[in-house]
Amino acid sequence: MGESTTREERYEHGLAMLDAVDGTAGANVIESLKDVAPELGHQIVAWGFGEIYSRPGLEPRDRQLVTLGMLTALGGCEPQLTVHINAALNVGLTPQQIIEAFLQSAAYCGFPRALNATLTAKKVFAERGLLPVE
Amino acid sequence: MGESTTREERYEHGLAMLDAVDGTAGANVIESLKDVAPELGHQIVAWGFGEIYSRPGLEPRDRQLVTLGMLTALGGCEPQLTVHINAALNVGLTPQQIIEAFLQSAAYCGFPRALNATLTAKKVFAERGLLPVE
Amino acid sequence: MGESTTREERYEHGLAMLDAVDGTAGANVIESLKDVAPELGHQIVAWGFGEIYSRPGLEPRDRQLVTLGMLTALGGCEPQLTVHINAALNVGLTPQQIIEAFLQSAAYCGFPRALNATLTAKKVFAERGLLPVE
Amino acid sequence: MGESTTREERYEHGLAMLDAVDGTAGANVIESLKDVAPELGHQIVAWGFGEIYSRPGLEPRDRQLVTLGMLTALGGCEPQLTVHINAALNVGLTPQQIIEAFLQSAAYCGFPRALNATLTAKKVFAERGLLPVE
Amino acid sequence: MGESTTREERYEHGLAMLDAVDGTAGANVIESLKDVAPELGHQIVAWGFGEIYSRPGLEPRDRQLVTLGMLTALGGCEPQLTVHINAALNVGLTPQQIIEAFLQSAAYCGFPRALNATLTAKKVFAERGLLPVE
Amino acid sequence: MGESTTREERYEHGLAMLDAVDGTAGANVIESLKDVAPELGHQIVAWGFGEIYSRPGLEPRDRQLVTLGMLTALGGCEPQLTVHINAALNVGLTPQQIIEAFLQSAAYCGFPRALNATLTAKKVFAERGLLPVE
Repeated sequence: MGESTTREERYEHGLAMLDAVDGTAGANVIESLKDVAPELGHQIVAWGFGEIYSRPGLEPRDRQLVTLGMLTALGGCEPQLTVHINAALNVGLTPQQIIEAFLQSAAYCGFPRALNATLTAKKVFAERGLLPVE
Repeated sequence: MGESTTREERYEHGLAMLDAVDGTAGANVIESLKDVAPELGHQIVAWGFGEIYSRPGLEPRDRQLVTLGMLTALGGCEPQLTVHINAALNVGLTPQQIIEAFLQSAAYCGFPRALNATLTAKKVFAERGLLPVE
Repeated sequence: MGESTTREERYEHGLAMLDAVDGTAGANVIESLKDVAPELGHQIVAWGFGEIYSRPGLEPRDRQLVTLGMLTALGGCEPQLTVHINAALNVGLTPQQIIEAFLQSAAYCGFPRALNATLTAKKVFAERGLLPVE
Repeated sequence: MGESTTREERYEHGLAMLDAVDGTAGANVIESLKDVAPELGHQIVAWGFGEIYSRPGLEPRDRQLVTLGMLTALGGCEPQLTVHINAALNVGLTPQQIIEAFLQSAAYCGFPRALNATLTAKKVFAERGLLPVE
Repeated sequence: MGESTTREERYEHGLAMLDAVDGTAGANVIESLKDVAPELGHQIVAWGFGEIYSRPGLEPRDRQLVTLGMLTALGGCEPQLTVHINAALNVGLTPQQIIEAFLQSAAYCGFPRALNATLTAKKVFAERGLLPVE
Repeated sequence: MGESTTREERYEHGLAMLDAVDGTAGANVIESLKDVAPELGHQIVAWGFGEIYSRPGLEPRDRQLVTLGMLTALGGCEPQLTVHINAALNVGLTPQQIIEAFLQSAAYCGFPRALNATLTAKKVFAERGLLPVE
C-alpha cells in the first residue's frame, strides 16, 4: 500500500473483501445507505474492509470470532450479528463453534447477551437449513 | 428560579420547552406513560426539560448534538433517537449535519452503532420528505 | 451441596427454581434453545437457577430488584426484562414497586433506559390486567 | 409537594436524604463539584435525592439493591459503587447480602463486572472492619 | 480526494488535523503506540483525523460536542475524555459549555457517567488554570 | 459428565483448566476473593473454567479471541484484559495477532475501546519482554 491509490481504488479493494466475507448481506447494508449516508457506506467498504479486514495478520475465521465476541458484548447489534454470523459460516466456522462462542459469552457478558446472540444465530441457521445444531 | 414554584408550575415550564423541541413526538411519550408511570412522565417534563434543557448555557442545537452522540453510543435507544433526530431538525440542524455526526460516531463507537443511528435517521428523514440527503 | 450429584440432578434442581420464579416464560426460553443451543439452556437452568438463584443469602424479591436494575442498565434486554418483570410480580413485588425501581433508574442510567424498561413493564402489566398502576 | 417551594428548599430537602443515606461520602462528591459544576451538585441533591430517593414507594434498602445492580451492569462506576456500597450498609443491607447480589450479577452481566463490583466491596468492607465476610 | 494519494500522504493530511485539534495530547497517544501497535496509530491519524474529522460538513466545535456526548455515554474512556476536553477548549468551546453538556448527560446517561466526565473536566481545567468555572 | 460429581470435584476440574490457561494471574484473582466472596471464586473456577472453558467444541486459542473481543467491547475491564492477554499468549496466540484483533476492534467498538485494550496489551508485553511488536 505504499503506492498511490485513488479513493475509488480503495473502495474497489474493500468491495472485493466485503463480497468475499459478507456476500449479499453486506452489499444490502451498503445499498441501504445510498440515499442517506453514502459516505458511511464508502468508509465501511474502503476502510473497514479495504484497510482493516484485508490485513494479513489474522485469519478471516479468527476475525469473525473476535467480531462475534464484540457484537455480543455491545448488545443491541442484532442486525450486525445477523450479517456476521452469516460471514462466520462463509469463512469456515461451523454452527457448533459459533454456538460455543456464544455459550462462552455467558461467562463474560451474562446470559441476556448470550441469549440474544444465540437466538439471532437460530434465525440465521434456520434460513440456511442448518437446524438442529447437534 | 430563586422564587417559589409549585410542582405544577415546574411541569408547565418544562412542557413549553418539550413542545418547542420535540413537538408531538415528545408529547406522545409522556402520554404513553400516563397509565403506568405518570411520575416518570412528570419528571422527564419538569426536570429534564424544565430544569436541564431550558438552561441558557448551551444552544438547543448544541444540546441536540451532544444528545445524538450519547444516544448513538448507548445503543438500544432507537425510539429515543427517533424523537431526538426530529428534535434536531426542529431546532435547526440539517440532515447533512446529523448524518455527519453519525459518521463521526463510527470512529468513537464503531460501525454497528453508527449504522443503527443512521438507519434510524433514514426513517425520520423519509417521513419528513428529506431523502435523499445530498 | 457437598454431596455427589449428577448433571441431570443439578438440572432438575434448577428447573424447580426456574418454574417457581419465571413460570412458563422461563420454560419457553429454554424450549426455544433446544434445537440450537441445548447446552446454553442447560446452564441457565442448572447453573443460573440451580446454583445461583437458589442460594439462601438473598430473598427472591431482592434478587429480582437487583436483576431489574441490571437489565435496565444493560439496555437491549427487553425480552429478558419481560421475563423478569413477570418474575418480580410472581415473587411478591407490586407493580408500584417495579415502576418505582425504574423511576430510580432514570437517575443512574438516564431517561432512555428508564423509558424502555417502563414501557416493557406496561406491556407485561397490560397482559396481566394490572393497568392502570396507581 | 403540591405546595410552593423554592429551589433552596428543594435542595435542603434532598440534602437531608443524602446525609441519611450516603453520609460524608455523598457530601464529599457534592463538595468536589463546587468549583467546577455546582449545578450538577445541586441537581444530584435536589432532584436525585430530594425528588427521587425520598419518594415513599420503595424502601431505602430496596433502592440500594436496584442501584447496586445498575452500577455493576454499567461498568466503570467504581467511585459510585464505593458510595453506594457504603450507603447499602448504612440502610441495613448486610455484607453477605451485598456480596450475594454481586454473585448474582455474574449471571446477568458476566464475571468481569461481578469481579469489579466485588473487589470494590472488599475495599469498603476493609475500611469498615467488616472482613472477612462469612 | 478524487486524486491519487499515498498512504503517507493520507497520514500527513491527518496529522495536520490532529495537531490542530488535539495538540500534544493527541501526538502523545500516537507516540505511545509506536512500539506496540503502529498501525492503530496510523489509522487514528490517517483515517480518524484525515478522512473523518477533516470533512467539511460539521464544524470542529460541533464535532467535539458530539464526541463529548459519546465518550461520556460509553464510560471507561477517561483518557480519551481528557484529550477531547482539551480539544474542545482548543476549538472554541468554553468551560461553561462543556460543563453544561455534561450536566445534560445526566438526563440521558445518569449521574454516574455525568460525574465521571465532570471530574475529568475538573482535572483538565485545573491544569489549564480555568477553575473555578462560573 | 453424566457421572456423579461433588462440588469439590467440579472445583478441582476447573482449577486444572484455570492453571493451564491463566497461570498465576488467575490464581491471584481467586485468592483475592477468599475473604470477601469465596463463592464467586468457586463459581469462576468450577463453572467458568470447569463447565464452560473445558468444553471441547472450541479451541483454547479461539476462546481467547472471542474473549478479547468481549472484554474490549465491554470497556472498564482492564484487569480482566490483563489476565486474558496473558492467557492468549499462554495458549499460542502471538502478540501480532492480539494487536491485530484490537486493531479490528476499532471498526466495531471505536478507537477509545481499541486504545484502552492496546495499551493494556503494551503493559503485558512489556512485562514479558515482548516489545517492540513488529
